[in-house]
Amino acid sequence: MGRVVVDVMPKPEILDPQGKAVAGALPRLGFDGFVSVRQGKRFELEVDGDVTPEILAQAREAAVTLLSNPVIEDVVAVTDASGEGQ
Amino acid sequence: MGRVVVDVMPKPEILDPQGKAVAGALPRLGFDGFVSVRQGKRFELEVDGDVTPEILAQAREAAVTLLSNPVIEDVVAVTDASGEGQ
Repeated sequence: MGRVVVDVMPKPEILDPQGKAVAGALPRLGFDGFVSVRQGKRFELEVDGDVTPEILAQAREAAVTLLSNPVIEDVVAVTDASGEGQ
Repeated sequence: MGRVVVDVMPKPEILDPQGKAVAGALPRLGFDGFVSVRQGKRFELEVDGDVTPEILAQAREAAVTLLSNPVIEDVVAVTDASGEGQ
């Protein structure tokens, strides 16, 4: 079973209220080492077989058309994660 | 500016309606190479300075206490992503 991981983050100029809320909560819980937080999405797409270049191209196309909203989000990575455990 | 990335995914035994919806939409849009999809979260924690072992330990602690719900989610990775662009 292959796996493609797609990472999507809000664009830098877009407000990110979830990230802001986390950034505000961290110091209250004693985690004072962080200056800002952004929250995005991670998709794990399972493939029946190996991750071929065609599958990876499909994943890249799906990332920008279905998995992200290009007005407010950037696809930051589309990676073959077949080797990773879990 | 350093950056720590925390990846959180729903546990395998937990239903993931968002992932299911994406998995159903992919073939309708012509992406037929994928058998299942899971949707999780990606956090980017910005650090003022370098990512030290202490910062990474803080991030790991924050990942399991604040960034994820351990009843339904797994922290799949806490990584120093300072070298990555953007």
